[in-house]
Order: sequence, then C-alpha cells, then structure tokens
Amino acid sequence: MEQEFLTAEEISELIKERRFSELKVYLNETNPADIAELLNELQREQYLILYRLLPKELAAEVFVDLDTDLQESLIGAFSDVELKQMLDELYLDDTVDIIEEMPATVVRRILANSTPHSRKVINTLLKYPEDSAGSLMTPEYIGLKKDWTVEQAFELIRKVAIDKETIYTCYVTDQKRVLIGLVTAKMLLLADRDQLIGDIMEENVIAVSTTEDQEVVAQMIEKYDFLALPVVDAENRLVGIITVDDVIDVMQEEIEEDIAKMNAIAVSEKPYLKTTVFELWKNRIPWLLLLMVSATFTGMIISGFEDALAVQAALTAFIPMLMGTGGNSGSQSSVTIIRALSQGEIEFKDIFRVVWKEIRVAVLCGISLAIGTFVKIILIDNLLLQSAISLPVAAVVCVTLCVTVFCAKFIGCTLPMLAEKVGLDPAVMASPFITTIVDAVSLVVYFQVAGAMFGW
Amino acid sequence: MEQEFLTAEEISELIKERRFSELKVYLNETNPADIAELLNELQREQYLILYRLLPKELAAEVFVDLDTDLQESLIGAFSDVELKQMLDELYLDDTVDIIEEMPATVVRRILANSTPHSRKVINTLLKYPEDSAGSLMTPEYIGLKKDWTVEQAFELIRKVAIDKETIYTCYVTDQKRVLIGLVTAKMLLLADRDQLIGDIMEENVIAVSTTEDQEVVAQMIEKYDFLALPVVDAENRLVGIITVDDVIDVMQEEIEEDIAKMNAIAVSEKPYLKTTVFELWKNRIPWLLLLMVSATFTGMIISGFEDALAVQAALTAFIPMLMGTGGNSGSQSSVTIIRALSQGEIEFKDIFRVVWKEIRVAVLCGISLAIGTFVKIILIDNLLLQSAISLPVAAVVCVTLCVTVFCAKFIGCTLPMLAEKVGLDPAVMASPFITTIVDAVSLVVYFQVAGAMFGW
Repeated sequence: MEQEFLTAEEISELIKERRFSELKVYLNETNPADIAELLNELQREQYLILYRLLPKELAAEVFVDLDTDLQESLIGAFSDVELKQMLDELYLDDTVDIIEEMPATVVRRILANSTPHSRKVINTLLKYPEDSAGSLMTPEYIGLKKDWTVEQAFELIRKVAIDKETIYTCYVTDQKRVLIGLVTAKMLLLADRDQLIGDIMEENVIAVSTTEDQEVVAQMIEKYDFLALPVVDAENRLVGIITVDDVIDVMQEEIEEDIAKMNAIAVSEKPYLKTTVFELWKNRIPWLLLLMVSATFTGMIISGFEDALAVQAALTAFIPMLMGTGGNSGSQSSVTIIRALSQGEIEFKDIFRVVWKEIRVAVLCGISLAIGTFVKIILIDNLLLQSAISLPVAAVVCVTLCVTVFCAKFIGCTLPMLAEKVGLDPAVMASPFITTIVDAVSLVVYFQVAGAMFGW
Repeated sequence: MEQEFLTAEEISELIKERRFSELKVYLNETNPADIAELLNELQREQYLILYRLLPKELAAEVFVDLDTDLQESLIGAFSDVELKQMLDELYLDDTVDIIEEMPATVVRRILANSTPHSRKVINTLLKYPEDSAGSLMTPEYIGLKKDWTVEQAFELIRKVAIDKETIYTCYVTDQKRVLIGLVTAKMLLLADRDQLIGDIMEENVIAVSTTEDQEVVAQMIEKYDFLALPVVDAENRLVGIITVDDVIDVMQEEIEEDIAKMNAIAVSEKPYLKTTVFELWKNRIPWLLLLMVSATFTGMIISGFEDALAVQAALTAFIPMLMGTGGNSGSQSSVTIIRALSQGEIEFKDIFRVVWKEIRVAVLCGISLAIGTFVKIILIDNLLLQSAISLPVAAVVCVTLCVTVFCAKFIGCTLPMLAEKVGLDPAVMASPFITTIVDAVSLVVYFQVAGAMFGW
C-alpha cells in the first residue's frame, strides 16, 4: 500500500531512457500534489514531456498545484486544442486564480479558448475585489429545489458530480435563486428516497456576502467546522460556494502576510528559493530606510545629553540594555494584542480591559526586571567584572527600566488597537515600529531620571 | 433566512423572565459554535439554565466548543445520568481533548461514566504523545471490506453514520485490519449498486503513522486537500482518522506557538482576556530577564570604549540607529527563513543557497542604507539640524552600517537553519535573540572602524 517515491533525478533518468509506459504507471499512482512538486524540480524539456504523459483529468489537477512560472511555460507550449481541453477540466475558481497571475497575452489566450459560458463566469469572478469572498468562490455548486425528492437529488448529483467542487453540501434555492436551505450528503443518505428536500433541509443557513473579507470567511469556516460556505449577493441570491481547501490556503496566506508585516517585510507570494535577490531587497529596504530615518530622534536625544554623558560615562553602557528590554517588552504586548485582534478574541471596545491588564503585567515585569538588574549590577558588574557602578547610577538604571517597561507595554497594547479602530492593519504596529518609539521614550526617561538624580 | 442574533444581555433578560420556550426555539435555530460563545459570556446560574434547555445532541456539540472553565463547571453541575448522556453523544477524540484539560477528579468522573468500550479507547488515545497524529485522531471512521458491494456499503453508512466523524471518506481494510484502500462518498454515489468496493476503491492511500508530528499532518492535509487522513500503526493497520476541522485548529495552534516564540513569549493556550495577569507575567518575564542579562555584553563593549567615546562624542548618537537597523535587518532574514523552514520550502541541505542569496541581499541592503544614511547626515543632520557631523564620523557610520547589515543578515539566516539541524525549534532563533547578538556585533564593528579611522 505504501508508495515508493521516485526522486526528480530518477524520473529524469527514466525520461532520458524513454521508459514512458513505466512513467505513466508511476504517475497514475501518484497524488497530483506530489507530481506538481516533481515537475517544479525538472528542466523545461523534461517537464514538458512528463506533463504530456498525464491523463487529461490528472493533468488538470496537477496544473493547479504548479508554480506560476511553470504554468505560464506550459500554456506557452500548449496548442489551442490542448489548452481548451485543460480549461474544460479546471474548476472555474482555479482558472480565475491562474488568470490573476498571468501576463495579459496569456490571459487573452485562456479567455479565447474558454467556452462562452465559462468566459462570462470568469469575467464576473475577476470583477470581485481581491481578498473578497467573491474572488474566492466557485459557482460550481450543487443546487436543489425544495419540492424535489431525495431520489431526484441523487439523480442530479450523479449526473453533475464530476464538475462540482463538492457534492457533500448541496444548496436549496427558490425560483428567484434566493438561498433558502442546505442539505448535506449525509442528510440525503439517511433520508428516505421519497422524502422532499424541503422537509429535510436545514433552514438556518450561515452565508457570507460576496464582498466579505477572506479573513472573515476563514474565521467562519474555522469556527463552524464547515466543509463549504455559501456566498450570496445583496439580494440573498446564491452566487457561489467557498470550500474548506481553498480556505486553508487563505488562512496560510493571511498569517504569512501578518508575520511579514510584524517584522517589517513587504509580503512576498513566492516561495523563498524562487524569489530573486532583487525582489527580496525590494521587500525589505523600504522599512529599513524608514526605521533608520526615524532613529534620528533617538540620536537627537542622545546628542542633547552628550555633555551629561561625558560626566557620567557609566550611563552610556546601559543604553543598549534599556532600549533592548524596552523593545522586547513592547513587542511582547503588541504581538499578543495583534494576534488576539486577528483571532477575534478582543475588539476595540475592550481597550480599557486590555490596557488595565497590560498595566498590571507591566508593573510586575518592571519590578522583576528592576530587581534583576540591580542584582546583576551588584553581582556581575561590580563583584565579578569589578566595574564599580555607583549606587546612584544603579538606581537610575532600575527606575528607568521600570518606567520604560511600563511605557513600552502601554504603547505596545494601545497602538495596535488604535490602528484597528481607524482601519489600519494592526500588524504594521508590531515590533520594529513600536521598538523605534520605545527607544526614544526610554532615552528620554533615562536622561530625565538621571538629571533628577545628578542635578543636571 | 438570515438569522437575528440575540446578544448575551437579551438572552439574560429572557432567562430572567423565564421565557424558556422562546429560548428553546432560538437555540434550535442557532449554530452550536454561536451558542457556545453566548454561554461563555453568561453568569454561572444563567448558563446552567440555558445549557439544560438544549436538546441532547445539540448540547454535546455546544459542550465541545465551550471554554475549559465552563466545561469543568458544567460537569460539576451534571448528575451522573446527565454526564453519561452527554459522553454518549461526544466523539471520542473530543472526549480525550476535554479530559486532557480537566483536573484528576473530573477525569475520574468522566471515565467512571463512560462505557467500558469508550473507556478502553480513551485510555489508548491518552497514551499517544501530545502533538502526535495518534493524539489527534478519532477511531470513529467508517471501515469497509473489499468484497462488499456498494449497496452493502450504503447500508452500513446509513446504520452507523450518526456516530462517525465523517462519512465522506470510508476506508477499506483486510482481515488483519491493514489499510488497503479508500472510497469517497462521491465514488460510492457514482458507482453502480452491485459493484464491488475492491473494484472501485483507490489503492494508493496516503496515510500517517500514529507517532507523526501534528504539524506534518497539517501540512499533508493542506498539500493534498484531503477531508480526512488515515492513521496507521507500525504494522500498517488502520487505527483512526484525522478530519480537516481538527487540522485547521492544529494549524492555528502551531502558528500561534511560532509567533509567540518568535517574539520571546511563552506559549499561552488561553484566549487573552481569560489569561490572568500573573500568567501573562509568567509567560513574558523569563525571556525578558534572559535578554536583559545577555545585554551585559553590549554594555561591556561600550564601557571598554568609554574614553574614546568621550573624545568623539558624536559617535554615541549613532549607536541606537546602528543597533536598531542591525536588529531589523537580522530579524527580516531570520523570520523569512523560519517561515520558509516551517512551510517546508527549504531544508538544511539548502543552507548554501540560502546564505548565498542572503549575502547578495545584504550587500544591496547595506549599500542602500549606507547611501541613505550619508544623505540623511548631510541633508537632515548637518543642513537642517546644524549638527556639524564631520565627514570622518559620517564615513565610520556608513561603513559600520554596511558591515552590520551584512553580519545581521548572515547570522539571521544561518542560526535558524542550524537550530533546525540540531533539532531545536528555529522559531526561538527569531528577532529578540538575533537582535541581542547583532547589537553586540554592530558595536564591535563600530568601534573597530572608528578606531581605524581615528587612530585609537
């Protein structure tokens, strides 16, 4: 039962030796996702050969899983007849996904080789905003009527199943195409053959509108454990469905986007090894430049206290530790809040509960860190390293640490919530951004406390 | 069709007015996940009343979605008969999930009220390591034999469907319970009633072993778009299945764990508002203390150059910018590599390709930043702010920036890959950890370059 996987090198050998019938047998036993991975690793002349060995239906499944550059290369190599055949096999939402990544010339060829009906549907789907439920859905669902019998439903399913993304949830609409209920394949199997769909259907159907954000769609599928979610237009008419497999991809995409933003990187849709050096540079440099310029403030603050620092030189050595601890404290809070917001655990209206909680955590963390630093200065710096840090300097550092952690956690929890409120993505308020602000704050606090202590 | 949602306050009013029949109608029309959310918001005396209004089957579905503290409170309020009834309705993998969160006394009550068969299965499931496929699976699948007809399969499905997590993928085993094939409900529906299962089944079944890590399980479901994945023991015998809804929860859990680790926070399984201040403190303080102590090195480096800094005071002002930019550059690389590793885009064997790519990106970023800084010093610092930064100081800053970015990106990409190689979680090598190292590196570079320029 367990399948032996061949490596790209072994496949390459088999192609060179023209052992095509062996290859065909192997491909027929292999999952489309694994074949796609294999093709992604081969050279052009080889993947063209291998792809043509696939039976029609399998070829379409493999095509959907290929990298964009391979898809483009294959379409370029297809005759119009081949292209038409493949498009016939694809689900329309997959065709739309492919079209969205292709250059205009390829798009024109795809549309020219689609049936008039598909072309119309594709054009409608392309009009929905990116990241909306409409752009994610497929119109290929199974639609039933409530006066049909279970037997009639089964007949329809058997007739059209091959072209539908899922047959496990079927939707019931009235004569105006308004969604009025759903039946699952399980409900159909457990019902009597002559029962009416209207009598067994579930009437409380949870649906989303075409304009709903894909992140909300993902949250709903996760919350309700659905295999598919119906999409309706403004008049409640059923226009399509979103299946769980597409939603898993969206979840992955959204979370990668958030992680990238939280770390000051522009979002890349390509896998790392396929991203060029120039693209990586382009994704990273804008934030680096922005954050570098904003660090001017911290520089200005230090410059303003240069004379004081020259007198109390020991103070300089603690600047990195204070800024680092402040940055870490702030990003702990901001990341926690950003994730809680994105998972719907908290909303803007919870801001006072959140701030109150973070304030208490900040006090606990600040005091622990101050004690920790004091012990460290006495034991490590003074006893072990013989640095002779004076008690006033130690006191200034510990007090600053407390205040900095407090400010960092306060800023770290409020900024993402305010961003959410004004419609910005909270994720951009994450560590690098917060760190820059907290750096400046911690320096100001440091010099104020030191000034008070040493009477500048 | 669209349902009106009642708020917790409205429900609370209805309970106080004892309008139970209205409540029952409302609950019956509401999705279990939404009822659970509602219960989570009510006071104890109210959620106890509301829960008892639920019909048996719906009550079990709601129970699974409740917060752990509510589950415990409800079990405490149940009579043994009520507990037994509810356990009868639960899927066994859900029972195990609940047991894992409960204190020992509650666990004993649950086991005492389970049927002997369930108890045996629960005990077996509890033995699998946490985060393994075994601990995630449910033994409640539909098993078929290859010499059955499609008609016989349908008969079995109709008889047992109610107790099985999914009926859409059925598994075929031989007399030794070895997994030999699968049929989907779609295949059954499209086949003739008298065809043999052995003739229509898919023989190349992708399965995981009970010991497989749950992250791999999630990746496989994502890659292959499966609705369920079979789990086999060392002898290839089918022991359970993992369904896509459980995997979505795992994906979410794993990614939250990674994000927490990447930001120096211990992982919390509770929603933010349910986590106590003390727990938040406990999750955050160890890393803060560790990173604070490790910042001793940066302090030591600065102390070593105190005299030099006193002479060239302008150098101090650039320390935060250099450390900040180094930290940001490093975390961009480390986060990119950590995500690529966790998605299986790269492996340890790609280390040279990764390093070579990052080096080129680092050179591009370093040069851009150096130019940016130089322009900024001339235009903003000197012309606008009249700071009179000398050209040698500007040169030292720009050269240091180049070298720091280079080191940061090199460290940022190699550390996570080495962590993966030695079996550590690459996520802990993320920004706070890398930042601390890069801080020290950037200071050493800074003072070396300055020393060379000013002849210290």
